[in-house]
Amino acid sequence: MWEYGAMDSHMTPDEFRENGYAVVDWIADYLENVDSYPVLSTAEPGDISALLPDHAPDRAEPFSDLMTDLDRVVMPGITHWQSPGWFAYFPANSSPPSVLAEFVSAGLGVQGMLWSTSPAVTEIEVRVLDWLVEMLGLPTSWRSDGPGGGVIQMSASDATHAALVVSRHTRSDGVPAEDMVVYVSDQAHSSIEKGCTVAGIGHCVKVQTDADFAMDVHALERSIAADIAAGRTPICVVSAIGTTATTAVDPIRAIGEIAERTGMWHHVDAAYAGTAMVCEEFRHHQDGLEMADSYTFNPHKWMMVNFDCNVLWVADRKPLIETMSILPPYLRNEASDAGSVIDYRDWHVPLGRRFRALKLWWVIRSYGVEGIQTMVREHVRLADHVASWIERDDRFELVAAHPFGLVCFRHLGGNDATRSLGAALNASGEVAVTPSHIDEMWFVRVSVGQATTELAHVDRLLELIDELA
Amino acid sequence: MWEYGAMDSHMTPDEFRENGYAVVDWIADYLENVDSYPVLSTAEPGDISALLPDHAPDRAEPFSDLMTDLDRVVMPGITHWQSPGWFAYFPANSSPPSVLAEFVSAGLGVQGMLWSTSPAVTEIEVRVLDWLVEMLGLPTSWRSDGPGGGVIQMSASDATHAALVVSRHTRSDGVPAEDMVVYVSDQAHSSIEKGCTVAGIGHCVKVQTDADFAMDVHALERSIAADIAAGRTPICVVSAIGTTATTAVDPIRAIGEIAERTGMWHHVDAAYAGTAMVCEEFRHHQDGLEMADSYTFNPHKWMMVNFDCNVLWVADRKPLIETMSILPPYLRNEASDAGSVIDYRDWHVPLGRRFRALKLWWVIRSYGVEGIQTMVREHVRLADHVASWIERDDRFELVAAHPFGLVCFRHLGGNDATRSLGAALNASGEVAVTPSHIDEMWFVRVSVGQATTELAHVDRLLELIDELA
Repeated sequence: MWEYGAMDSHMTPDEFRENGYAVVDWIADYLENVDSYPVLSTAEPGDISALLPDHAPDRAEPFSDLMTDLDRVVMPGITHWQSPGWFAYFPANSSPPSVLAEFVSAGLGVQGMLWSTSPAVTEIEVRVLDWLVEMLGLPTSWRSDGPGGGVIQMSASDATHAALVVSRHTRSDGVPAEDMVVYVSDQAHSSIEKGCTVAGIGHCVKVQTDADFAMDVHALERSIAADIAAGRTPICVVSAIGTTATTAVDPIRAIGEIAERTGMWHHVDAAYAGTAMVCEEFRHHQDGLEMADSYTFNPHKWMMVNFDCNVLWVADRKPLIETMSILPPYLRNEASDAGSVIDYRDWHVPLGRRFRALKLWWVIRSYGVEGIQTMVREHVRLADHVASWIERDDRFELVAAHPFGLVCFRHLGGNDATRSLGAALNASGEVAVTPSHIDEMWFVRVSVGQATTELAHVDRLLELIDELA
Repeated sequence: MWEYGAMDSHMTPDEFRENGYAVVDWIADYLENVDSYPVLSTAEPGDISALLPDHAPDRAEPFSDLMTDLDRVVMPGITHWQSPGWFAYFPANSSPPSVLAEFVSAGLGVQGMLWSTSPAVTEIEVRVLDWLVEMLGLPTSWRSDGPGGGVIQMSASDATHAALVVSRHTRSDGVPAEDMVVYVSDQAHSSIEKGCTVAGIGHCVKVQTDADFAMDVHALERSIAADIAAGRTPICVVSAIGTTATTAVDPIRAIGEIAERTGMWHHVDAAYAGTAMVCEEFRHHQDGLEMADSYTFNPHKWMMVNFDCNVLWVADRKPLIETMSILPPYLRNEASDAGSVIDYRDWHVPLGRRFRALKLWWVIRSYGVEGIQTMVREHVRLADHVASWIERDDRFELVAAHPFGLVCFRHLGGNDATRSLGAALNASGEVAVTPSHIDEMWFVRVSVGQATTELAHVDRLLELIDELA
């Protein structure tokens, strides 16, 4: 069955095989040679647009033209997140089995909005997320056989927004959203403030942090008291295991206790660092999670699952489903009506969903728990190596602890010297880093997490820092 | 560059090629034989789970095991959205170039949150959405060189939610969200009511429809007057070009005029039928769009772009960006600061985004505008064929007009006979349809839109209807 209706421009099965092999080869060549490209695209605004026609083609173009344009049009505008010289932002690492799983998922072309619209999509997702609860040492009550449960979402921004909406929804009798308050640290990711704006929550209070950039719980308590006195209603506190700027870790247990005492929802953002918990030696950072109401992390950051694949867990699935569930006639079906299955469309904003659990399943099976542990430990070891080198050089200093794979340092010559160094590293074409600042202090973020990054790449980065400083 | 750190379980380039070819062959075989599977999965709840281990594997498993499990574990739980016998819901159609583009996108593994994090991702998206404005006869002011602009989102639910949030945000000075009202027809998609709940908008009023299931504008005006009299604030009306139940078309121009007169945002949901506008003969259905504030359609429904790929256009990009933009230090960069580029993270809730424009670009180029027109016209012709057959048979009647590819009919024997027929068709394994109802009237939805569906498949459906009625 492979006739494309009345169109004479369809690809035959033989052509699909031939073109598919060509794409496999192209991707293999790309990944084999990704270190030969300048890590950051050198395109100027408009460079890629200038290569694109103003109007869509009326007639079909041959597949070979698309492939040619991958090299001619697309590649000059690509910033190589999969380069072993990628030390920017956080990683969005990937792996061959993940890429192949995404391909299979696209080939199947199923839409898993309901259990019944492809039972395998839902049941593999449920099982693999249960595996992850165990792999990461998360509270067992979050497994699907407990009161909680997990769901794949597109991004941590979506997951956090969903958690904020649920916390708002469960408190909405009589309290206007405009009077509600959500607390985050002044180091929290921008997605939380954005989530509050999107959810219409009136106040997002940034609680001050201590010398380690972790939330100061005394400041949190003072803020809560002041807001209550002013007639506002605290509804939620969002803590971070690994902030974006420096991977600082908020005191999860102390915040959880305050949340319990004050009747607030406690959402934990471990978008990047969640993957580290596959290794027991990092789990002290998540002490107190059993009191959390929701938790999110991104397998698409550091677990070799290509973007997008975020996971949200809730300690109690009821309020999430109550907030997100709308049941029109055309979505009703026997399995759902019987209550014997999970319909994930009731767990997030979008209705449709693709088969993202496949790549998570394939990655975990392809590397095994031990393989993922090995990768995490290696990246952390390499980050420690960077930090030791920085500490030994009297031109630089570390600006924060480095509990995971991120090292933040500055040039003792000051902000200008630090920014210049960051810019020079990025202009080298060999590496990418992220210059950032906290208040008035600029620093360079070096994030070790690309799956193919090895000691040699880190040493080359250090050589460049040495030369360009 | 292809060493996976310290892991000994990585795939070598040669292994990736070999495994990749195997996946190409597997997908080609699947698509060639998709009509040999029962369209709906026959799995019972728990069947797939029972095939999955309780715990993640500690050690790496070979790729061949993953492929074996595609057939052993996954396939029994797949409902075949790509079958030519797929007449259920709306289509989520696809095509070989789209599947290959998704594979390339996964292989590149880039994250286009900012222009600078891969300029090609943004610039190709901007250009292709400008192409679509022209292809679909949309207002030219929505092009990127006008005040408006388009953005790819995950689903129409996300796009509609975003539009509702912007309409709430632009009206939020002094008006509590709990007092705001959004209007939809009683035939509108559930995503709008859900979007209102998620956005914290107090009231989602379902306006009654006329005999054609289109919004009754007089009823809309009465509702608005009553709400204003009761102290509520109308903020938005959502109209549909092609409702989910029957593809009814709301009077876009009349609703737009009311929205202008009353200062409401007008969002248009053309999730399914938007694709039809590639053919000029359908464009009378979108008359009045120049007054709309936002518009969404899904290339992943009927334009051969595999899920997910939704487009949201806004007539004025400013309020969208003002609502969604948060700029922390670690996301600042020269190009963005200069204002010379679009950063799409400011156009939706998620921060991260994958390279979805690639598949839209490849599909339009692979078929050309004429190829997509041919497909749409063929599906509409086949739907007309179904409708004529139904009309000629005195056991059945059409329950609604069929302006696009969807035909809704019922058995004159009543609701039980109609539901039995729907269930029998679905149990046949050869086709999938969606039984639905409006108020007390049950009917069967037959949606012709799978890219490979031809006259023979439609005739087989009619034979089955004839036999099973």
